[in-house]
Amino acid sequence: MKIGILGGGQLARMMAASGIPLGMEFVFVDPAADACAGAYGHLLTAEWDQAPSLEDLRGCDRISCDFENVPAEVLDALVEIAPVRPGPNAFAAAQDRLTEKRLFQRLDIPVPPFAEVSSRADLLEAIDAIGLPAVLKTRRFGYDGKGQAVLRSKEDLEPAWRALGGRDLILEGWIDFHHECAITAVRGADGSIVCYPLSWTVHADGILRLALAPAPVAPKLESRAHELVGRLLSELDYIGCLTLELFATDQGLVANEFAPRVHNSAHWTIDGSVTSQFENHLRAVCDLPLGNTAMRGQALMLNWIGQVPPMEDFLRVPGLRWHDYGKSARPGRKVGHATLVAEDRRDLEAGLVGIVDLVDDQTASLLKGEMTPLG
Amino acid sequence: MKIGILGGGQLARMMAASGIPLGMEFVFVDPAADACAGAYGHLLTAEWDQAPSLEDLRGCDRISCDFENVPAEVLDALVEIAPVRPGPNAFAAAQDRLTEKRLFQRLDIPVPPFAEVSSRADLLEAIDAIGLPAVLKTRRFGYDGKGQAVLRSKEDLEPAWRALGGRDLILEGWIDFHHECAITAVRGADGSIVCYPLSWTVHADGILRLALAPAPVAPKLESRAHELVGRLLSELDYIGCLTLELFATDQGLVANEFAPRVHNSAHWTIDGSVTSQFENHLRAVCDLPLGNTAMRGQALMLNWIGQVPPMEDFLRVPGLRWHDYGKSARPGRKVGHATLVAEDRRDLEAGLVGIVDLVDDQTASLLKGEMTPLG
Repeated sequence: MKIGILGGGQLARMMAASGIPLGMEFVFVDPAADACAGAYGHLLTAEWDQAPSLEDLRGCDRISCDFENVPAEVLDALVEIAPVRPGPNAFAAAQDRLTEKRLFQRLDIPVPPFAEVSSRADLLEAIDAIGLPAVLKTRRFGYDGKGQAVLRSKEDLEPAWRALGGRDLILEGWIDFHHECAITAVRGADGSIVCYPLSWTVHADGILRLALAPAPVAPKLESRAHELVGRLLSELDYIGCLTLELFATDQGLVANEFAPRVHNSAHWTIDGSVTSQFENHLRAVCDLPLGNTAMRGQALMLNWIGQVPPMEDFLRVPGLRWHDYGKSARPGRKVGHATLVAEDRRDLEAGLVGIVDLVDDQTASLLKGEMTPLG
Repeated sequence: MKIGILGGGQLARMMAASGIPLGMEFVFVDPAADACAGAYGHLLTAEWDQAPSLEDLRGCDRISCDFENVPAEVLDALVEIAPVRPGPNAFAAAQDRLTEKRLFQRLDIPVPPFAEVSSRADLLEAIDAIGLPAVLKTRRFGYDGKGQAVLRSKEDLEPAWRALGGRDLILEGWIDFHHECAITAVRGADGSIVCYPLSWTVHADGILRLALAPAPVAPKLESRAHELVGRLLSELDYIGCLTLELFATDQGLVANEFAPRVHNSAHWTIDGSVTSQFENHLRAVCDLPLGNTAMRGQALMLNWIGQVPPMEDFLRVPGLRWHDYGKSARPGRKVGHATLVAEDRRDLEAGLVGIVDLVDDQTASLLKGEMTPLG
């Protein structure tokens, strides 16, 4: 099996790392000549709109993506070459926050109140209907908190409009959540679905920083998450791995957004699950049986943002696994992660004591906030 | 860190797979243009004696090997470029069965009776001293049972001499063993040593077929193995991963041979240990702290010899991990392996029931012989 991946970042890289032992070969398309997936396969340096005409992509048996902003018309053209999994319909739904929210509504998946904003007048009307605080977001091309502005009072309106006005926008009501979480599930070509345990996620400045699994929640909440993501997968006739980001609130789970691809909140599955999200995505994409999603103990993932910290002291922490993406340092860039795996919560907390002293102050503070015995 | 590896086979391939997430880069030297490690780094197609003059090897920070028959003079020359780990002394000892046996003797590591055989007269004398059955072996370049002849009676002498005579030989007394086993250990640049649990190994036609860990033996036997391999590592001032193959007999453990490299009997460590032998080898080679060798459950590895069987049905077995080396099929060639990982022995046996029907008759029979409840 030869798999073509649009995007050559860390998600493509970790997909290939899990697929090569299954006998798969990889071709990546990325505009960056130093895209980090290149270590695991043939990297084609090209803009997205060139992809359908790339000779080296023609031999692929399947095509998949490592990010969700590939233009839909590119995916539509690639269907002529090989099955594109997940399909263009999932990308179309995920690329536009308004379409996405309407899809959630149609599937009876709870969402925050929201309104389409195409003009200043729309925005004022939406604020009247939804109230403040609220979040103004671009409908397209937002990621890692980019293209968003929080409106806490009327005074925030002008700067937000200056930053975002003129693009297609959506206003979303503020959700008073206890915690953020994410559910990752995989649907095979035969319609079978497997779900990972719920991840407890912690963001700072719009970027995921920590993910803990299994999330410390009642089994009922986890099965509710499985039910919601299952509805989405079936509706989209989806093939591959998908993550639904959720808010845990007093009123239960509320959907934030979904990503039609492998996802940062489930990177812990590489070391903490029998079968990783990356391998299961490829199994689905290639019509292979889906693998066991059971956890091997408990896991906590820490993202390395901007630059990878010196590795040596971390390697002394028992059960810590290291993942350097081979990317150059740049502020705000996801350049690696580490996952601490332990038999149970007590061992996990014991391991974290050693880690708190090694990480930057912000990460240490997030860790202490999450793992009460460390505080 | 840029690591140069002499040899580009599956061992180099799995080393690189474990090293890339640690931020390492790899260059492989192999005479075969399709050497399978090439999927993970830069493959230099060259004969061994060319290695010291290869420009692309000059930028390496460390040099290591994926097989033990690299000529000692090549390793000596490479020391000028970068530290060669393990060092040429370990290769010199492992490459000659006579030197190796004498080293074992000096370290009080039990060995079978043996004698140097340089002529027919030597052979007759050795048989008189050691008795039959015995095994006549070439002193150098033997692997996977090649370059060996079992002498059960005087009638076996002529054909064995015709096949092997003219080379430097050794005659070894027959060892009446209960089982074969192997101990894998890693020594860091600081002299620290970590050991994996003992592997229970099963060979057919001189080729490893199965490895089970932890070996079902008394803790005393395992600590004895740790003691023996520790003596060897310290004596050689060894840096990296080493495997000592042993016979379990009525008189305790008897050494067969050692390999100055990562080893097939410990491939289960990829899926069954916190830190694999491959990662720990690289950690040692690069002066990094050694990783935890504790097992995550129990593991049984099956080697794929000649060709990789159809994967799909195997992927349905819960806890089975697949490793296709990307090599073309050829009789007797190691082309892949699978490892079944389970919480405990009972689950492991339950998983094997599903596997026995999928493997070839010989493997099925070996499995049944090993795992009594399957018989």
